[in-house]
Amino acid sequence: MTTTPSRTRRAPRKPLSPELAGLIVDRVAGRSLQAPFYTSPEVFDLDIVEVFAKHWLFAATDAEIPEPGDYVTLEIGPYSVILVRDDDERVSALHNVCRHRGARILNDACGSVGNLVCGYHHWTYSTDGSLLHADSQPADFDRSPLGLRKVAVRSVAGLLFICLADEPPADFDDMATRITPYLEPHALTRTKVAAQEDLIEAGNWKLVMENNRECYHCDGHPELSCSLFPTYGYDPAQLPARLLPAHERYLRAEADLHRACAEHGLPFEEFEDLVQPLTAYRIQREPLDGAGESFTPDGSAVSRRLLGDFTEPKLGRLSMHLQPNAWFHVLSDHAVTFSVIPLAADRTLVRTTWLVHEDAVEGQDYDLEELKRVWHQTNKQDGTFVERAQLGVSSPAYEPGPYAPNEYQVEAFCSWYANRLRAGIAADPGVI
Amino acid sequence: MTTTPSRTRRAPRKPLSPELAGLIVDRVAGRSLQAPFYTSPEVFDLDIVEVFAKHWLFAATDAEIPEPGDYVTLEIGPYSVILVRDDDERVSALHNVCRHRGARILNDACGSVGNLVCGYHHWTYSTDGSLLHADSQPADFDRSPLGLRKVAVRSVAGLLFICLADEPPADFDDMATRITPYLEPHALTRTKVAAQEDLIEAGNWKLVMENNRECYHCDGHPELSCSLFPTYGYDPAQLPARLLPAHERYLRAEADLHRACAEHGLPFEEFEDLVQPLTAYRIQREPLDGAGESFTPDGSAVSRRLLGDFTEPKLGRLSMHLQPNAWFHVLSDHAVTFSVIPLAADRTLVRTTWLVHEDAVEGQDYDLEELKRVWHQTNKQDGTFVERAQLGVSSPAYEPGPYAPNEYQVEAFCSWYANRLRAGIAADPGVI
Amino acid sequence: MTTTPSRTRRAPRKPLSPELAGLIVDRVAGRSLQAPFYTSPEVFDLDIVEVFAKHWLFAATDAEIPEPGDYVTLEIGPYSVILVRDDDERVSALHNVCRHRGARILNDACGSVGNLVCGYHHWTYSTDGSLLHADSQPADFDRSPLGLRKVAVRSVAGLLFICLADEPPADFDDMATRITPYLEPHALTRTKVAAQEDLIEAGNWKLVMENNRECYHCDGHPELSCSLFPTYGYDPAQLPARLLPAHERYLRAEADLHRACAEHGLPFEEFEDLVQPLTAYRIQREPLDGAGESFTPDGSAVSRRLLGDFTEPKLGRLSMHLQPNAWFHVLSDHAVTFSVIPLAADRTLVRTTWLVHEDAVEGQDYDLEELKRVWHQTNKQDGTFVERAQLGVSSPAYEPGPYAPNEYQVEAFCSWYANRLRAGIAADPGVI
Repeated sequence: MTTTPSRTRRAPRKPLSPELAGLIVDRVAGRSLQAPFYTSPEVFDLDIVEVFAKHWLFAATDAEIPEPGDYVTLEIGPYSVILVRDDDERVSALHNVCRHRGARILNDACGSVGNLVCGYHHWTYSTDGSLLHADSQPADFDRSPLGLRKVAVRSVAGLLFICLADEPPADFDDMATRITPYLEPHALTRTKVAAQEDLIEAGNWKLVMENNRECYHCDGHPELSCSLFPTYGYDPAQLPARLLPAHERYLRAEADLHRACAEHGLPFEEFEDLVQPLTAYRIQREPLDGAGESFTPDGSAVSRRLLGDFTEPKLGRLSMHLQPNAWFHVLSDHAVTFSVIPLAADRTLVRTTWLVHEDAVEGQDYDLEELKRVWHQTNKQDGTFVERAQLGVSSPAYEPGPYAPNEYQVEAFCSWYANRLRAGIAADPGVI
Repeated sequence: MTTTPSRTRRAPRKPLSPELAGLIVDRVAGRSLQAPFYTSPEVFDLDIVEVFAKHWLFAATDAEIPEPGDYVTLEIGPYSVILVRDDDERVSALHNVCRHRGARILNDACGSVGNLVCGYHHWTYSTDGSLLHADSQPADFDRSPLGLRKVAVRSVAGLLFICLADEPPADFDDMATRITPYLEPHALTRTKVAAQEDLIEAGNWKLVMENNRECYHCDGHPELSCSLFPTYGYDPAQLPARLLPAHERYLRAEADLHRACAEHGLPFEEFEDLVQPLTAYRIQREPLDGAGESFTPDGSAVSRRLLGDFTEPKLGRLSMHLQPNAWFHVLSDHAVTFSVIPLAADRTLVRTTWLVHEDAVEGQDYDLEELKRVWHQTNKQDGTFVERAQLGVSSPAYEPGPYAPNEYQVEAFCSWYANRLRAGIAADPGVI
Repeated sequence: MTTTPSRTRRAPRKPLSPELAGLIVDRVAGRSLQAPFYTSPEVFDLDIVEVFAKHWLFAATDAEIPEPGDYVTLEIGPYSVILVRDDDERVSALHNVCRHRGARILNDACGSVGNLVCGYHHWTYSTDGSLLHADSQPADFDRSPLGLRKVAVRSVAGLLFICLADEPPADFDDMATRITPYLEPHALTRTKVAAQEDLIEAGNWKLVMENNRECYHCDGHPELSCSLFPTYGYDPAQLPARLLPAHERYLRAEADLHRACAEHGLPFEEFEDLVQPLTAYRIQREPLDGAGESFTPDGSAVSRRLLGDFTEPKLGRLSMHLQPNAWFHVLSDHAVTFSVIPLAADRTLVRTTWLVHEDAVEGQDYDLEELKRVWHQTNKQDGTFVERAQLGVSSPAYEPGPYAPNEYQVEAFCSWYANRLRAGIAADPGVI
């Protein structure tokens, strides 16, 4: 326990302003959030403490650190975390902070190491975080309590999740159990990173998430619209007339997909529990428009080398949404992961990673630009939407507006978020 | 009323710190303001709420939006306002914030539109702000309360003024009635924008205004000094000896001007009420030095095509000062408008617009560089003065110093400002 | 007194947050400081008020302003100070703030003037700060209370020190008396500035000082390691085995140095009182490794023209440490001064000045690049260490770690700092 002290031993928390506490308690369902949730630095700090430091976060893929000694560093608000694979191939997550005078130990985004050596005074740690050596110490120097502080980490079917809390939410196991059979056939542990792109959007992280949770705005995504059914996210009972033909096409494609899934033993059922659980998520296998194979103008596969042992490319997309900050599209020929990292009240990092089969050869099995095209363009378009939303809600004239039925997942995200803040206040009314 | 909720329905205001409230109540007349009024972000927010959101502001000229559908957007602190001319040529002022999820609707500084369409989910508003269409809504969706929130707007002799308050100061009408006969002969409604320049000065907006309110520093304006009498702003009884010859010259020019005004039926009397009214201003027609026609090295007209129906170029300058943030120089051959927009405690936008007769032809009737020269140079010089003042008052060693008699308009500005803050505190002692 | 008002007449101070006050009182000796001392803007403001505005600071060298009228300006947090040599060669220190409307008077880092004339309205001050002339004033205008506010200044053997407090610490005299005999033989008053470099490090000023106060990290300084004994700062009783040979070499060099000092009448004894006094310092003459003459790869002198009247180059280094923000290396052939100026919680200016004999000729007596090499490189390397420390301590996972015996001067610095803040709280519990 000495290496993971309770919060009370850390720097003191700022007290929560009464105005803000009131807004959290009074949040009105069915409408966008009040402006301070998108604009206030106080809320930004609160989101780090109550959301990002207390819940499971998608951090990286196993494919990013394939070999012993491979590491990535991840910055989440003021935290810096090392994900490193040790010699027996287990992944450790460690705070990137030397226990001597606090220097950051690893200063690159990724790389490969033997031990973890601080560049300042050469304190040396093993990949599991224990302090192996510190020079110039008195005879009675005790290294044991001075290991790098650990971060909880879990690997699920090739996806790496971390939790910064001392007591991570236990319901992670329910999610892991449920999503594993959906993911495993895609064998993400046998993929490689074809590309990774970081995009900084000029808006609050929640606007980035809200934008991802609806396709009401998808007219603004010409490339994505080729492969995504425009009915995505709608309550069928509420479908506008203009979308009925698309819905017919969708129903036929869905029937075909269900037959193919039955044939190949792939689960496809929708599971959605986005509001109440600490680890809240949605998973479903859905048909793609066009040829129905992948994110391309005509819907045909972009990588000839399919994932895992697939022979059938027309398997639609396995899509997964996680609260607070990730979503995934897993196809027969490649997978794309997205994680959202707050940088400031009005700046957010969106990291996109494209995975292909570890044996796929660029330029032969797939064209890199074609692989990236749809989501590279879509991310840029979303960045513009998010920036305009940030600018607008920053006006004192902004008032929360009503969500349409096809924005029910946006409401689910906001409800989950408001619940998490309310729980934080309940746990510690005076101070968060 | 649903479209213009009272402040209490907006984001909560920050309570005012006792230190700051004390400084506001205790402001000493005849001296510059205490440092926090120039440097504190808390005061910056307060200035937006108590000064810029509660008073009439010069926003633009009719000449900037001549045709139906023409618009400009204006950012005032966190606000973004659309000024748009509708089909029956009336100008509407609307908050640039979609009522759906708050996205900024118009993202350019100016342009022309049919309806106002949000780029995010295509909510569509008429130029008067009413919501015409929102896609994907339930059957019982009521558009009526979801029009764009309105901003009060008034056009006076070609100048557009807005007020962000729900109940704008009523004394605007007094000003409009008084200044109209001074302005109308210059027919600003029949002008065009020859040039517009935005300059960002590295100082607080009040230092920009204070700098504009005296000519004690005009030795630093060689170009302007050609046409402006160095006695400007002095109490004649207090004139330093070195300025007596200039004053003699001024008196002769003033007599000539008054004769010309009488002949052409132009009002010239000074009216000044800069301290007490909510809408406080100063207007006067004054002679120019040199040829007395315009802002040029020798004082001769810069545009051959005079404004309105003028035939006589030697009409001096009609100069107008408005609290809190504008001034104007209206001549026989062109007009220059200035508006000051706070960007941060230490950054301020100064927008300068040059107007000439709508039929004047650049390169033929006037040379653009010659038209702009004096105020382009003068603004740059003032920017340096303001930056040095900001740097100096930021030192804890700064103490408010005494104004000289020829700085009485600076004192008038500071008194008006302090009165407006005191009124705000009186209206709501705990919270501003 | 009217020109130096007590603090209560200045802008009101912010009250100190209880969390921070608690951290100050509870600081644990033997460990690095809690994170907010390195990261919080509130602490940054507090450091300016309690440390930089209340203690003696090394400001510049006499060699930087050799002639009457020569000046340098120095920015310390929000303060700007003028150091100017007047006609009778005395140095005045004055706040660089006009008493009229607060404009910064001198806007260059250095130069030469007759009187001090504000560029805004031409208020004119003598080099001792008295107001000589202000234009356009009423007949009864009294200039006497409107001189530039004075800053305490002292010159000691060619080094200029200032104190921003109204009542500077009296123990400065003890330091001046003690260090003068060490410094005088080097005749810094007869030097010239060969070079001056400003480096902005991306860390808190205390991390910059802590880094300077130990050589535990000196493996990271290959150039410096040539001339500095690796045993620097160690308790001989605690020396690690690897350093014993170096220690033997050090003892021989020290014996040689003491003989040379005795021969030339140079004091060499260590004096160290870094914790309790307001003006806390350390001074000692120590041997250099290699040839023992200067900071060069082989330890030989870098300037053929020795300082003062020295004929013997092998005099080691006279090294001096001052709390809060300076250190010095004074050799037989040149001197290097270092001052540390906080710019923000996470940005710090390090100013390095190289002095050589006033008659030394660049390119003939010394090579400028060779003169600068060691400390130019060492500063850059330290900047990297400081940046990594700042990044690390910014993580909520950071906890103060234990200092090793060879970091005892780091502990001394932190203890002195904590004492100064505690004294500030004791003097004014509610408000600092």
